[in-house]
Amino acid sequence: MKLIRFGKKGFERPGIEINGKRLDCSGHFEDWNHDFFQNNGISKLKKLYSEIGNQLPEVEISTRMGSPIARPGMIMCIGLNFSDHAAEAGLPLPEEPILFMKATNTLSGPNDAIAIPPKSTKTDWEVELGIVISKDCYHLKNETEGENHIAGYTLVHDVSEREFQIERGGQWVKGKSCPGFSPVGPYLVLKEDIDDVLNLGMQLSVNGKSMQNGNTKFMVFKPDYVVYYLSQFMQLEAGDLISTGTPRGVGLGFKPPIYLKRGDEVILSIDQLGTQKQQFI
Amino acid sequence: MKLIRFGKKGFERPGIEINGKRLDCSGHFEDWNHDFFQNNGISKLKKLYSEIGNQLPEVEISTRMGSPIARPGMIMCIGLNFSDHAAEAGLPLPEEPILFMKATNTLSGPNDAIAIPPKSTKTDWEVELGIVISKDCYHLKNETEGENHIAGYTLVHDVSEREFQIERGGQWVKGKSCPGFSPVGPYLVLKEDIDDVLNLGMQLSVNGKSMQNGNTKFMVFKPDYVVYYLSQFMQLEAGDLISTGTPRGVGLGFKPPIYLKRGDEVILSIDQLGTQKQQFI
Repeated sequence: MKLIRFGKKGFERPGIEINGKRLDCSGHFEDWNHDFFQNNGISKLKKLYSEIGNQLPEVEISTRMGSPIARPGMIMCIGLNFSDHAAEAGLPLPEEPILFMKATNTLSGPNDAIAIPPKSTKTDWEVELGIVISKDCYHLKNETEGENHIAGYTLVHDVSEREFQIERGGQWVKGKSCPGFSPVGPYLVLKEDIDDVLNLGMQLSVNGKSMQNGNTKFMVFKPDYVVYYLSQFMQLEAGDLISTGTPRGVGLGFKPPIYLKRGDEVILSIDQLGTQKQQFI
Repeated sequence: MKLIRFGKKGFERPGIEINGKRLDCSGHFEDWNHDFFQNNGISKLKKLYSEIGNQLPEVEISTRMGSPIARPGMIMCIGLNFSDHAAEAGLPLPEEPILFMKATNTLSGPNDAIAIPPKSTKTDWEVELGIVISKDCYHLKNETEGENHIAGYTLVHDVSEREFQIERGGQWVKGKSCPGFSPVGPYLVLKEDIDDVLNLGMQLSVNGKSMQNGNTKFMVFKPDYVVYYLSQFMQLEAGDLISTGTPRGVGLGFKPPIYLKRGDEVILSIDQLGTQKQQFI
């Protein structure tokens, strides 16, 4: 069972994808939001499906897919979390996770068109594994507790503007928070349904040309540790999204760098987590 | 007329303070949140007060004060925005505003006790002027448009953990997002009710000893410009909070540095924006 959200932007409704069908759960749940995750919503959802799954209305195949989670309290990202990406960025491997935030209003659907920001000349791509938090937590004791607070995984495109991020002074947030810069989905896969989260292929292509071709096994800091680590500094909340960094092959890493321009098509995927396709406009 | 929120943490209700009285508006408005600001709530509130202000219930004087705005979509901060503070931090004056975010769940009431985080040895203070955004906006044209998108001003304590912020790798967010690290209030003063936002004294004392004694006139980047500038990179939303930086006199700036310990009392104020008092526990 995979969680989805579908419908017009800003008016998405919660649903599931199972056995190749998309089913509407909006008659039974408000949204896949903080309250849903915090209050054992996933167990309730499984119970609902086992009891009346065959009565849930089917979603039209042409319906727009939104982010599979509602706007979270936080989108936190881990920087330079793949050794090959740190190398191409010309930066040393971090001794501790590097954290930065994206504005939560950057959340968008997996196939929504993305506007290159006005005056941007360095819009770049990053395929990433996203963690969704299952329960509020602070100061977890160890990685096992970290693992216990993961609801599941999803595909994230951490779109970035490198001039804004790097050349405009100070912290990275400036280049990470333009509207539409966080496509998420197509679905949230529950943790127990992933075979081995530490061995998932990650791919990204631009106009059909392969740019990123990595694997989650090369992550420096693994998901369980990342959740534990973050909780040492801040309260994580159910439904929060943590994006865990990108492998080598971003536009900034080419010599000379390659950036996105109007009309480009980006396709990205992670094994078992589905595919996104975006037109840059 | 000043906006307040009062009641138990997490269950605050909206109200106003006027002529020395605190009045409960929860019978007429849901909260001082995004929808309130975005939908001309302030005009509606003024109309309500002019029509039936004398019928609004009074708030018990002993009631806890919460943040005067509901949890915003974003808490954005401007780093090193006072020349004297940049000097004490040993950092050059920024050519452009330095931005960083705080987790929005750090929001707390102006007089709530603040827990020094486990393992923290460098918890520090920062008195700051906060801007509250009046309407969603992106890519404003100039500072005048920036000014038009400010609802009002409030007092912010940007509590910081310097080891987490500076010595743990990467970006500043790690030392800025511990629970309770963003006391706001006691009230939001509407823009039109501030005499001159560019000439407000700023004070902070620890256990009765004056530590910060600045003035908003020494800000490098002024509020109207800050709103215009931020909107070049991201969509600001009604009810968002922007904290505009601190003058000299933070604990980090002393030689040797001075940090907060359990039992310390911090009192801070900005002219016309009221006073906060926090016990560190």
